[in-house]
Amino acid sequence: MKAVEDCTIGIVGLGLMGGAIATALRNCGAAPAERLLAYDTNEETLAQALSAGLIDEGFTESDGKPDIAETQGISGMLKRCDLVFLCLNPSTLIRFMETRMGNFKEGALIVDIAGTKGRICSVMEKTLRPDLDFIPGHPMAGAEKGGFANVGLVNFKGKNYILTPLRRNRPENLSFIKTLIRRMGFGRITETTPGEHDSKIAFTSQLCHVIAAALIDCENDREITRFGGGSFEDLTRIAMLNVPMWTEIFLENRDELMKRIEQFEGSLDKLKTLIREEAAGELAKRLTVVRDRRAGM
Amino acid sequence: MKAVEDCTIGIVGLGLMGGAIATALRNCGAAPAERLLAYDTNEETLAQALSAGLIDEGFTESDGKPDIAETQGISGMLKRCDLVFLCLNPSTLIRFMETRMGNFKEGALIVDIAGTKGRICSVMEKTLRPDLDFIPGHPMAGAEKGGFANVGLVNFKGKNYILTPLRRNRPENLSFIKTLIRRMGFGRITETTPGEHDSKIAFTSQLCHVIAAALIDCENDREITRFGGGSFEDLTRIAMLNVPMWTEIFLENRDELMKRIEQFEGSLDKLKTLIREEAAGELAKRLTVVRDRRAGM
Repeated sequence: MKAVEDCTIGIVGLGLMGGAIATALRNCGAAPAERLLAYDTNEETLAQALSAGLIDEGFTESDGKPDIAETQGISGMLKRCDLVFLCLNPSTLIRFMETRMGNFKEGALIVDIAGTKGRICSVMEKTLRPDLDFIPGHPMAGAEKGGFANVGLVNFKGKNYILTPLRRNRPENLSFIKTLIRRMGFGRITETTPGEHDSKIAFTSQLCHVIAAALIDCENDREITRFGGGSFEDLTRIAMLNVPMWTEIFLENRDELMKRIEQFEGSLDKLKTLIREEAAGELAKRLTVVRDRRAGM
Repeated sequence: MKAVEDCTIGIVGLGLMGGAIATALRNCGAAPAERLLAYDTNEETLAQALSAGLIDEGFTESDGKPDIAETQGISGMLKRCDLVFLCLNPSTLIRFMETRMGNFKEGALIVDIAGTKGRICSVMEKTLRPDLDFIPGHPMAGAEKGGFANVGLVNFKGKNYILTPLRRNRPENLSFIKTLIRRMGFGRITETTPGEHDSKIAFTSQLCHVIAAALIDCENDREITRFGGGSFEDLTRIAMLNVPMWTEIFLENRDELMKRIEQFEGSLDKLKTLIREEAAGELAKRLTVVRDRRAGM
């Protein structure tokens, strides 16, 4: 792989995360002028990103627009890119790779940012064009509101980044990507299996979103925030969720998420029983374990 | 009631909240030099607060210390105070009022900060000395770590303050306290009944703490934070709880808290069912309601 500054980089999907990645690539100097291309179905987003100097060229689908030249569409972009960031939901990503596999530049390196990894990794192990490399990953950053307009809310500084490498990944590409991830500002990089990723993320992310949604679901008083002291606000901030994305992620990772919901219900039930039975000593003992465990994390 | 600057103010219990109130009273000019007294069973805390200039005099229990003069003990302090902040847990507060009712200065105004209000209000309606006034309240502020050492983590600016006035409260005292609360930096003041307070707080505060504790309870992997992207951290920050205080508050407000836990379990179960049954359309519909409701709060 050549130096990243000499790569032509393509962002597929200029939403919240695609926009944040473009911003980080520019800010860290990895994508100098003329090197950063982006594809999105929303032409207005592309126009905004272009006029802000965030990207150098914008590409959009030619579907239904027969007058768009080949070079202006997604295939025109992909054939120029040495490095591609796929910033798409899991199912869109899989469809995109099926449809566009033939369009990538010879030897291109592809990375993704999808929040579930099992299916993507198994499909890519089987179907990736032999000359391409695809490194699955999950940057653990976001914002409570989605879309390109909210890119400014995303901060990569010190955040976690999970990689779930494929057996076929070339070591030099893995090392290239890790260097780039650090340069974009991320902190800890964890390499793990897609299975472990999906299990842990079902807990730290999806379960937390389900809990936040359930909390809001069970109280219809808009004035409830008069009684808020920070806890409720903290626990429900993420309830302002990107509905299509989270619906897909919950269902995509359904088996792991169901296990985690049931595990959580078990712990909640134990605490509820101690409270109902006024078992002060036992309750204090369990809360002490919790406090110490959280403090040690 | 005279101007607050001319009042001698006593803080009973110089823990996290007592210390934060002393700080706010000093910073807003309501408690000028010589006017702020504090009682605590921990002499080291008193010494720290004195040397920091946060309080003007410290008082401690004379129990087991027969050589402590009457004027150095709690009764010596109470007989000088026009305004007293009781910064104690509910049961300690009720015991304190039983024991010390005779020690308060004629006509003194007493306020408290306890997180449950039902029992305190009903006991005070019945037993308060006729010349005294007691305005029950709950400042919705705190920190994830307790104790005087963490006072710097508390910020009252713009926070909610709930008052659950007694029928006997004098209107001029209520108005005096509301002015002081605003001066200390709080935002919205809500007046409500003890019953509504305990029901809403069971939801916004106690349920949230139980959920945070249950989340930590069900995962023993200290390395789980490698998979954190903010949601898990937000939902479990409050799990580092002050164990004796929360054990007491959970049990004190047990009936309301049980109702709220069951309400939450119902909502969680509905979401779980939609996920298990892969009811994408219904799930998206419910998440949309949640998103809009939270955004409107």
